[in-house]
Amino acid sequence: MALIVHKYGGTSMGSTERIRNVAKRVAKWARAGHQMVVVPSAMSGETNRLLGLAKELAPSQASSAYHRELDQLAATGEQASSALLAIALQSEGQPSVSYTGWQVPVRTNSSYTKARIESIDDKRVRADLDAGRVVIVTGFQGIDEGGNITTLGRGGSDTSAVAIAAAMKAAECLIYTDVDGVYTTDPRVVPEARRLGTLSFEEMLEMASLGSKVLQIRSVEFAGKYKVPLRVLSSFTPWDIDINEEAKSGTLITFEEDEQMEKAVVSGIAFTRDEAKISVLGVPDTPGIAHQILGTVADANIDVDVIIQNVGKEGKTDFSFTVNRGDYQRTIELLKAQVVPKMGAEEVLGDDKIAKVSIVGIGMRSHAGVASKMFRALSEEGINIKMISTSEIKTSVVIDDKYVELAVRALHKAFGLDQPAA
Amino acid sequence: MALIVHKYGGTSMGSTERIRNVAKRVAKWARAGHQMVVVPSAMSGETNRLLGLAKELAPSQASSAYHRELDQLAATGEQASSALLAIALQSEGQPSVSYTGWQVPVRTNSSYTKARIESIDDKRVRADLDAGRVVIVTGFQGIDEGGNITTLGRGGSDTSAVAIAAAMKAAECLIYTDVDGVYTTDPRVVPEARRLGTLSFEEMLEMASLGSKVLQIRSVEFAGKYKVPLRVLSSFTPWDIDINEEAKSGTLITFEEDEQMEKAVVSGIAFTRDEAKISVLGVPDTPGIAHQILGTVADANIDVDVIIQNVGKEGKTDFSFTVNRGDYQRTIELLKAQVVPKMGAEEVLGDDKIAKVSIVGIGMRSHAGVASKMFRALSEEGINIKMISTSEIKTSVVIDDKYVELAVRALHKAFGLDQPAA
Repeated sequence: MALIVHKYGGTSMGSTERIRNVAKRVAKWARAGHQMVVVPSAMSGETNRLLGLAKELAPSQASSAYHRELDQLAATGEQASSALLAIALQSEGQPSVSYTGWQVPVRTNSSYTKARIESIDDKRVRADLDAGRVVIVTGFQGIDEGGNITTLGRGGSDTSAVAIAAAMKAAECLIYTDVDGVYTTDPRVVPEARRLGTLSFEEMLEMASLGSKVLQIRSVEFAGKYKVPLRVLSSFTPWDIDINEEAKSGTLITFEEDEQMEKAVVSGIAFTRDEAKISVLGVPDTPGIAHQILGTVADANIDVDVIIQNVGKEGKTDFSFTVNRGDYQRTIELLKAQVVPKMGAEEVLGDDKIAKVSIVGIGMRSHAGVASKMFRALSEEGINIKMISTSEIKTSVVIDDKYVELAVRALHKAFGLDQPAA
Repeated sequence: MALIVHKYGGTSMGSTERIRNVAKRVAKWARAGHQMVVVPSAMSGETNRLLGLAKELAPSQASSAYHRELDQLAATGEQASSALLAIALQSEGQPSVSYTGWQVPVRTNSSYTKARIESIDDKRVRADLDAGRVVIVTGFQGIDEGGNITTLGRGGSDTSAVAIAAAMKAAECLIYTDVDGVYTTDPRVVPEARRLGTLSFEEMLEMASLGSKVLQIRSVEFAGKYKVPLRVLSSFTPWDIDINEEAKSGTLITFEEDEQMEKAVVSGIAFTRDEAKISVLGVPDTPGIAHQILGTVADANIDVDVIIQNVGKEGKTDFSFTVNRGDYQRTIELLKAQVVPKMGAEEVLGDDKIAKVSIVGIGMRSHAGVASKMFRALSEEGINIKMISTSEIKTSVVIDDKYVELAVRALHKAFGLDQPAA
């Protein structure tokens, strides 16, 4: 008997048949005595369909007035799926009501298409829960001070669910998705990959930022900030499985250090092919170099990930960093036009055939030699490391794109992730 | 230079190509110096698609909670089309903003799926107009006192447009549709049918209630109540036709008696096949008979149209009325079960192969002999009249279904409607 938030992704809401299954599952939880708040995404494909229509009418506009209308448009997807879920619940005999972001209201700033939640007024929702209703709240959207609809950006429904769970002090926020939890790595690359029963919030944050697509990173940040226990689980188990079994399935993202200390040193292997590497060679080794290069890149709104500066020789140094692959060409051109002439660098080199592979584990904090074990495993496979970047709980290497599967498999095995946890 | 309201139906908004044409047309009006408010319907097919999904989930429910969700669902269609139109206008270089019913706000009562507009706050819209923006307002919907979305029922966008025009004291409300005006009768039946340049509000009301589908009847009532000049015109003329020509096209629904007095006695012929006739024979001719029969029918939520009671003979009388064809079987069964036994009537007869044909004209008020001219024209074609019903500005007859085209053509000719107006 607790207040529980369920979040269902677009695939789980993808047809009336699937919506009916979601309704049956939620009704089961309600019958077990829980107060239920449900946050659904739009039916799969709907957001793309709507934004596709907008694109046909106006291929690209930067104005705030345009982005306001995109939000007004895209928000309809969740409004429709939420109403449909409420109808499905009612049809199961479960009283239910759906609210849009503005009806709750979920207050956000006015950054259309990527708004941030500022506050949630839970009075209305709580009154319905107390009256025995399941409350459906549209994911992905809110309302700004001027009464305009805002959306939180792609995957924003995860963030909505976590924010509502935080505001209402929910016992747990269950993220139902098309995978049954967070894995030690992508099972399509390593068949021996295992589902993690628990994962610390910090590890989840690294996994999300390093390419694991299970949760939207902002929702993990939100969960961390407000200490919302998050569980990632599958919406494709039969709806009528035992509720106690279901409540323990998937992967729980926890905030309790004690539990974590017992765990394996490395929890998972993340990887991404979304990046490209750029090197500026023969840069004068003087103070302010990093700022001069990266300032120019940042001014063009290009995000930089891994950054490396080698020790200089003969008054010159090499400077390397990675950017999103989509920004690769633009960054190269920018550097050639603005940076090379100004600072007298020798050359700009680029490589967009790279991949980043990372080991993540909260246990790395207190275990030495984890990084060197990683490097050895890669060298045994003959994989050359191009860049290295470390943080307290992860070590990332940039390698040749073509070795990524081999590297992931080797690291998965080297850190014993294919063995059941002790 | 005036405040003008445009309303575009679902067919006119049926694709991005058509939405772009609407935008070009509206931008032309704005460039001519008019303050423009535009009320679009949902893209054609969208409302049916959404309600179809609801029906798959819950075939039929009578609860208010269910109807609330239907409105929450259906309202998304107009929200999306409105945002798309705003985007198309922006893409034409015309500043524009879209508002939902709740953003204006358009206040309604809480009769979900068939709400009535109570008030419209035009402050926000007026501020945008003054700032040079075209304002798009979603048709079909509003918000009730509790902050719930409501819809006005099928065709409600016409009513939204007229209500907004009334609240803002617009110079004219232009209803763009897939026909180019109101005709003397259906051109598919009478090829000689002519478009009417003007029509009085009362005539339009009769035409609408008698089966002409050009305007939703509630919108005509609304226009009459608030004296909103309404024009019905085609959205399929080229968007770049001369604005002065466009402004005079279609059919204007007026409120000025003087103009009307000069007009033809009969303005149009309306007809419908949507009804069925029911007779209760041999009813005791005592006070309260009509109430006893029709009270039972009304209690079952069945609408009755034409009602006839003959003069009685030998203490008995016959009582006839028409209902919607869809209610025909149910009404017969109801009468046999509840009315016949109770009041000792002799028999219940029915006929669902009937049609109702009506002549409509404000000139009938001051011209005698119009009805008899109608009856003569029908008798000359050998058409038997089954029922007659009259009002100040219309005469309706119920005839055999199979004669309807013949009757409409004969009447159209008899009243000189195929001749250009003097």
